[in-house]
Amino acid sequence: METPWEYRYAHRTQRMGSSVVRELLKLTEQPDIISFGGGLPAPEVFPLKEFKDACDYVLDHDGAQALQYSTTEGYSPLRGMIARHTTRYNVSIKPENILITSGSQQALDFIGRLFVNRGDYIVVESPTYLGALQAWNAYGAQYISIPMDEHGMIVDELEKALRNGPKFIYVLPNFQNPSGATLSLERRQRIVELADKYGVPIVEDDPYGQLRYEGEHLPSLVYLDSQYRGDDGTYTGNVIYLSTFSKILSPGIRLAWVIAPEQVIKKLVNAKQAADLHTATFNQMIAYEVGKGGFLDEHVKIIRDVYKERRDVMLETMDEIWPAGTQWTKPQGGMFLWGILPKDMDSAEVLKLAIERKVAFVPGMAFHANGGGLNTMRLNFSYSKPEIIREGTTRLGLLLRELVSKN
Amino acid sequence: METPWEYRYAHRTQRMGSSVVRELLKLTEQPDIISFGGGLPAPEVFPLKEFKDACDYVLDHDGAQALQYSTTEGYSPLRGMIARHTTRYNVSIKPENILITSGSQQALDFIGRLFVNRGDYIVVESPTYLGALQAWNAYGAQYISIPMDEHGMIVDELEKALRNGPKFIYVLPNFQNPSGATLSLERRQRIVELADKYGVPIVEDDPYGQLRYEGEHLPSLVYLDSQYRGDDGTYTGNVIYLSTFSKILSPGIRLAWVIAPEQVIKKLVNAKQAADLHTATFNQMIAYEVGKGGFLDEHVKIIRDVYKERRDVMLETMDEIWPAGTQWTKPQGGMFLWGILPKDMDSAEVLKLAIERKVAFVPGMAFHANGGGLNTMRLNFSYSKPEIIREGTTRLGLLLRELVSKN
Repeated sequence: METPWEYRYAHRTQRMGSSVVRELLKLTEQPDIISFGGGLPAPEVFPLKEFKDACDYVLDHDGAQALQYSTTEGYSPLRGMIARHTTRYNVSIKPENILITSGSQQALDFIGRLFVNRGDYIVVESPTYLGALQAWNAYGAQYISIPMDEHGMIVDELEKALRNGPKFIYVLPNFQNPSGATLSLERRQRIVELADKYGVPIVEDDPYGQLRYEGEHLPSLVYLDSQYRGDDGTYTGNVIYLSTFSKILSPGIRLAWVIAPEQVIKKLVNAKQAADLHTATFNQMIAYEVGKGGFLDEHVKIIRDVYKERRDVMLETMDEIWPAGTQWTKPQGGMFLWGILPKDMDSAEVLKLAIERKVAFVPGMAFHANGGGLNTMRLNFSYSKPEIIREGTTRLGLLLRELVSKN
Repeated sequence: METPWEYRYAHRTQRMGSSVVRELLKLTEQPDIISFGGGLPAPEVFPLKEFKDACDYVLDHDGAQALQYSTTEGYSPLRGMIARHTTRYNVSIKPENILITSGSQQALDFIGRLFVNRGDYIVVESPTYLGALQAWNAYGAQYISIPMDEHGMIVDELEKALRNGPKFIYVLPNFQNPSGATLSLERRQRIVELADKYGVPIVEDDPYGQLRYEGEHLPSLVYLDSQYRGDDGTYTGNVIYLSTFSKILSPGIRLAWVIAPEQVIKKLVNAKQAADLHTATFNQMIAYEVGKGGFLDEHVKIIRDVYKERRDVMLETMDEIWPAGTQWTKPQGGMFLWGILPKDMDSAEVLKLAIERKVAFVPGMAFHANGGGLNTMRLNFSYSKPEIIREGTTRLGLLLRELVSKN
C-alpha cells in the first residue's frame, strides 16, 4: 500500500540509491560464505580490556559529563590528543583546526553539504572510494575520473582536469580503498603544486595511513601543502584532511576527525549543529581514555602484524593458484587489494559463480565514478583469519582458472 | 588570512548560520551564571551504575560485535524493544517501521534531506523548536507559522495553510519546546483529519512524552492517524513520529528513533548510509542492555519526580516575585516553560541586563520562524537544582519588577 509521503520526495532523494555494494553484501552474509567483500577490521584486534577499563574510568570520574550534551566541535582533550599526534608529522595545527565527526563518512557528507552545488565536478581517482561517491551523489556532484597505476593517480592527466574548474580534488594517498595503491612522493608534491597553480583545493582521505606493513611513511598532502605555502604555524591552506579511529581502534564507536583551516572548521561546525548537534560525548571520552597514554602507538603495531600476515597469505595463494592473465596489486598497507581479470571478463558475472562456491568480493565497477572497471575486483584481507583467506583465495583462483581456460 | 576554500562554498552554506541560541549560551557558560537557557537534563538522574553494568556486560559478551561496523537500520534487539514499547500505546508497528538515528536532530536533518526542495513551505507552530528550523533552513525551507495558545496549535488557522500546499506539518504535541504547551485531544484529532483531507502529512516530534507530571496521557498523532485510516496492522499512514533516549536515559550517547511507513524508512536508511553509515553499535547495545528489563519504566518515574519538583519551584517563585503584566505557561510535563512580558518589552534587551545579574534564558524571538515573539522567553527547569531555580527565578523577577515599573 502506498504511503502519502510517496509524492513528496525532494529532487535529491532520487540520487540516494541504496549502495550496490551493500545490496550485494547482503547476499554474502550467509555464515558459510568466505567474504572478501566487506571492509571490516579484524575483531580479534579490538582492545576489549582497554575499552572496559576506559568505560569504568569515565563513568566513575566524569559520568555526568559523559552522558550529557556537549559542544559540536568535539571533546577538547580528544581534539588536543589528535593535534599532538598530527604535529608529530610536522603539520602545525591547533585543536581549532579539528572537528570530531561520527565516522569519516559524516565528514564526506559535510564536505558535500558545504561545497557541492548540483552539477559541480569533483576530480576523483579511478577507481575511488564508493562511500565518497554515495555522499556526494546526494548533492548532485559529477566527477572527472583520473586513471591510476601502482603509484596512485596519474598526475599527467590531472592538469587538464584542473583547467576545467572542478570544485576540489579527492585523493586517498595511502593504500587506497579500493585499489591498495599508494601515491608516490613525487606525485604528492606535484598534486600540491598543481592544486596551488589552478586554485583547486584538495580533500585528502587517509583512513589507513597508520597501517603500513613495509616501506617508508610518506608525508601527507596537508604537510606538503603547508611546506609549499610556507604557512607560519597557522594552517590556512589548500587541504582538508580526514582520518579516523575506525581502523586503529574500533569502527563501532563511529569516531573520526577532520583537519582544515579554522575558517572551514567553523563552517563544518555549523553543518554539524544542524545535522546531529555533536558526536556522542561518551564515545569521545572513552577514545581519549584508551588513547591518551600512548596506547594506540603500541596497538597499531599489533594490528600491522595481524594484517601483514593476512595480506601475505592472500598474495602467496594468488601467486600459487590464480591463472595466467589475472593480475593484482601488492599493497604496502591497508586492508584491500585489487584484482584485474582479462579484459573481456565481467567480475559481476564472476561474483555470481563465486557465491555458488561460497566466496565473495566486490566487483570493481562499483568504484568507478564514470563507468568502466568491469574486469576488476576488490578483495579485503583484514577481516578473515589466515587459513580462511587461503581457502577463499584458492576457491576463487580455481574458479578463475576454469573461466580463463574456457575464455 | 583567507583560505582557498573561501570562494567554493555551495549556495546552501549561506543558510547554515550558527545558532543564535548557541552563541548566546556561550555567554552564559560562565560558572557563576544561573542558566535557564539550555535544554539539558539533570545530570543527577543519569543512571551511572546501570551504564557501567551494561558496558561490562556488552564488552564481556558481545565485545567484538559492539566495536564492529553494523547495519544502517539499527541494532535489531533495540528496534524490537522500541517496537514493543510503541505497541503498548496501540500503534501497530514492526521493527521495519523503525530507524535508529544519532539523536532526533539527525532525524530532522534526514526529513529535510528527503522531502524539502528549496522554497518548499513547512507548517510549523509559532513558536516552534529551533533545532528543526536549523535543520530545514539548510535545505532552503520556508515556513507557514500557526499561532498557539495553552492547548497548542490553533487548529482553526491550520486549514487555510493546508490549502496553500505545504510539504508537511511539524508539530510537537507534548510539553512543547519552547512553549511547554500540550496539544488537546480534540485538536490532535482535528489535525489528523485535516491532514488526511488535504493530503498533507505530519512530522510528530515527541521527545518529552514520557515526562508527564500531572494529567492524563494523550494519544499520539501516529496512533490517531492509524485509527482514523483504519490501518490493519501495517502502518502506511500520514505521520512520521520521532522520539529519543536523550530525555529518558542520556543525551550524551546520541540515540533516537524514527517511526514511519516502511517505504519511508527505506528512504531514510539510504540517506543515513550516505550521511554516517550507522549509529554507533556500542551505544545501541548499551541502551538495549540498560533498557531491556523494564528499567526505563521505573527510571522515568524518578525523572518525573525530580523535574516536577523543579517545575513547581519555578512556578511558585514566579507567582511570588514576578510583577503584574508578566505571564507564563504552566506545563504539565517536559523541561520548559514560556514567559510572556508586556507587549512593548524586548526579551533580548532583558537578557543583557539579566546576564549582569548572573541569570540567563533564551529570548523567544529565536523560536519564531517568521519573526515576532520579541516579548517572550524560554525558561528551562530541568537542569538546575531547586534552590538554584528559586534564586535564579527570583533574580529575574526582581529585574522584571524594575523594568515593568520604569515602563
